[in-house]
Amino acid sequence: MSVISLLTDFGDRDAFVGVMKGVIWRIAPQVQIADLTHWIEPQNVLHGALILGQAYRYFPQRSVHLSIVDPGVGTQRRAVAVRIGDFYFVAPDNGLLTIPLERAEKTGEPIHAVELNEPRFWLPEVSHSFHGRDIFAPCAAHLANGVPLDELGSHVESRDLLRVVIPRPRRTPTGWEAQVLMADVFGNLISNLTSEDLGDQKIRKVFIAGTSIERFTRTFGEAPSGSLITMFDSSGYLSVCVVNGNAQKQLNVRVGDPLEVVTE
Amino acid sequence: MSVISLLTDFGDRDAFVGVMKGVIWRIAPQVQIADLTHWIEPQNVLHGALILGQAYRYFPQRSVHLSIVDPGVGTQRRAVAVRIGDFYFVAPDNGLLTIPLERAEKTGEPIHAVELNEPRFWLPEVSHSFHGRDIFAPCAAHLANGVPLDELGSHVESRDLLRVVIPRPRRTPTGWEAQVLMADVFGNLISNLTSEDLGDQKIRKVFIAGTSIERFTRTFGEAPSGSLITMFDSSGYLSVCVVNGNAQKQLNVRVGDPLEVVTE
Amino acid sequence: MSVISLLTDFGDRDAFVGVMKGVIWRIAPQVQIADLTHWIEPQNVLHGALILGQAYRYFPQRSVHLSIVDPGVGTQRRAVAVRIGDFYFVAPDNGLLTIPLERAEKTGEPIHAVELNEPRFWLPEVSHSFHGRDIFAPCAAHLANGVPLDELGSHVESRDLLRVVIPRPRRTPTGWEAQVLMADVFGNLISNLTSEDLGDQKIRKVFIAGTSIERFTRTFGEAPSGSLITMFDSSGYLSVCVVNGNAQKQLNVRVGDPLEVVTE
Repeated sequence: MSVISLLTDFGDRDAFVGVMKGVIWRIAPQVQIADLTHWIEPQNVLHGALILGQAYRYFPQRSVHLSIVDPGVGTQRRAVAVRIGDFYFVAPDNGLLTIPLERAEKTGEPIHAVELNEPRFWLPEVSHSFHGRDIFAPCAAHLANGVPLDELGSHVESRDLLRVVIPRPRRTPTGWEAQVLMADVFGNLISNLTSEDLGDQKIRKVFIAGTSIERFTRTFGEAPSGSLITMFDSSGYLSVCVVNGNAQKQLNVRVGDPLEVVTE
Repeated sequence: MSVISLLTDFGDRDAFVGVMKGVIWRIAPQVQIADLTHWIEPQNVLHGALILGQAYRYFPQRSVHLSIVDPGVGTQRRAVAVRIGDFYFVAPDNGLLTIPLERAEKTGEPIHAVELNEPRFWLPEVSHSFHGRDIFAPCAAHLANGVPLDELGSHVESRDLLRVVIPRPRRTPTGWEAQVLMADVFGNLISNLTSEDLGDQKIRKVFIAGTSIERFTRTFGEAPSGSLITMFDSSGYLSVCVVNGNAQKQLNVRVGDPLEVVTE
Repeated sequence: MSVISLLTDFGDRDAFVGVMKGVIWRIAPQVQIADLTHWIEPQNVLHGALILGQAYRYFPQRSVHLSIVDPGVGTQRRAVAVRIGDFYFVAPDNGLLTIPLERAEKTGEPIHAVELNEPRFWLPEVSHSFHGRDIFAPCAAHLANGVPLDELGSHVESRDLLRVVIPRPRRTPTGWEAQVLMADVFGNLISNLTSEDLGDQKIRKVFIAGTSIERFTRTFGEAPSGSLITMFDSSGYLSVCVVNGNAQKQLNVRVGDPLEVVTE
């Protein structure tokens, strides 16, 4: 039984997502469908790319990740389906797939991409503003049904797939200058500095929003309730947290704000 | 494998929806369940009817649309199951099914309705305030299992099923007077004027909230980011949009507000 | 086909819940997954316990209820799997299971608990902050696959499982002093006084937030729209409601506020 994951900026007030599930199950009645999130900030491709990058590897092999954040719907932007390592992706070609693409380019996993330009795999009528329903969902369902990738459209060189710039931390004389990528539901602030970036370096201090944090822990349990700490989150990113509290509210920080990390 | 869709005003903070899924899977363990939306405005039957009307036809044939917006729970209002063309509907008899009913009456598709008055298809104990769990969900699950519609209760004439009044646009000397039916998650304002209403007429101008819009496009891609445009949305309704922006916020418009459409 | 229900405080903005579904379907591809709610107040174990207590019995026998509200993640708190009567539960040992445990202790249904301390049923890498993904979801999936409870870890005495204190109503000379446990999406205020507590007593008056309510009804249909009423809700709790309105907003009441119930 195959799995399709859905990531969009459609929210849950309209029936957009439900309609895509109806379309998928018309074509692939057995498929399991998991919502990743439908609350990507409207038309914020970077936000979508980050969330997809954290999530896709936890799914079964051959899962289809259907990802739609599509400010260019109705323009000449391409719609693509891409096999990257063990997973399929169906998305507009606008950078949503940046993290799996860059990871595969580093590890040498195969990447195989096609442009979705075979209308026989679409709904019979295609609207100008809802390609999620009319093109992306049907193509994802056909992939889940076992239709070979190459039948969905013509080959695209993987180096021609668009990327978004994911802000990277910068080395400084005393450590790193990083920035806040996201905040999660608990108000934990996730930065773009990873344990891999740090390697052997140890964190001595983190400055954020005029506050200095000296407590770096491995777990929430190492500091009392209410403490401001830094730790690596479950995806390996350095994050700023209040134990059993909300760091985003307490520090009044926004996505993009800087962190200065002093190492020893 | 059959599909049940769910549309309610139950939100997602309580366990109401999850409990209905539990009840459904006790009776029909194989059924696929898709949430259409649970954010119909509390007890707003017209809103529910509009969203259901946009969504139901994209589902597999013989899907069961379980739709509960039920301000009359605990009164004498009827609970019904209705076959309309290729689809089943299970709902309170209060107008939620207006769009599929009126469409079928126009096209001549068969309509077959029963009142849910056979307690052997309900949960053993029926509460006074949660018929979604106790009556509607079990009946939908039995339908998905293949129980014939007629066994669920006694026949109801389809002309006796209640309807809501869906506001229709009016002809004026210069074109049409329409109104805003809904806003979607992107702030696109969906009016009640359809491409079918317009036929051969071309739109020259739209007045809304003191603003005149002269740009009518087929796609978002035909106008620069930030432009105020009108276009037909993916369901064929005339809508007012800001390209990559939010028309509802920009114009400060509410559901029910008028649009004046000047045609040539 | 087995069912896993999910109850968390993870919200739906992040991909936490979707990732857990991916992990579950890697291990148990056939399982049906129902979201109970992901909007438990952050780290509010009592709130989670109340919602789970209302919902779990409506699911198919042998369903696995995966419940994660986990302020103690990364401390020495135990992770457990428990069979209680017909259902399995996988959760941190912090009181989330209080209602099914206390109910089973009253009825004599068997309770069988293990600590999740067999790493071969976890993901290969376990993070310090997301045991939902790394430990709880895989163990729930293995249970749904038919792995015997005893293989997941070592036996725990059920009397050693932690409980939360669920506030109970107190007898007074004139009736009961109760309190507001929760408000639902419609603004109905759910108290901790049950029809079972009242037995033969009849309600004469309820005082709440400086207001006296004399209308006690069985259904919403017995009072005109806009009336303030009390009734037993679909779980048997005394609740304060406005017919087709919102009692929480109208009375400006919060969770924990008192009700005085005068009986005759």
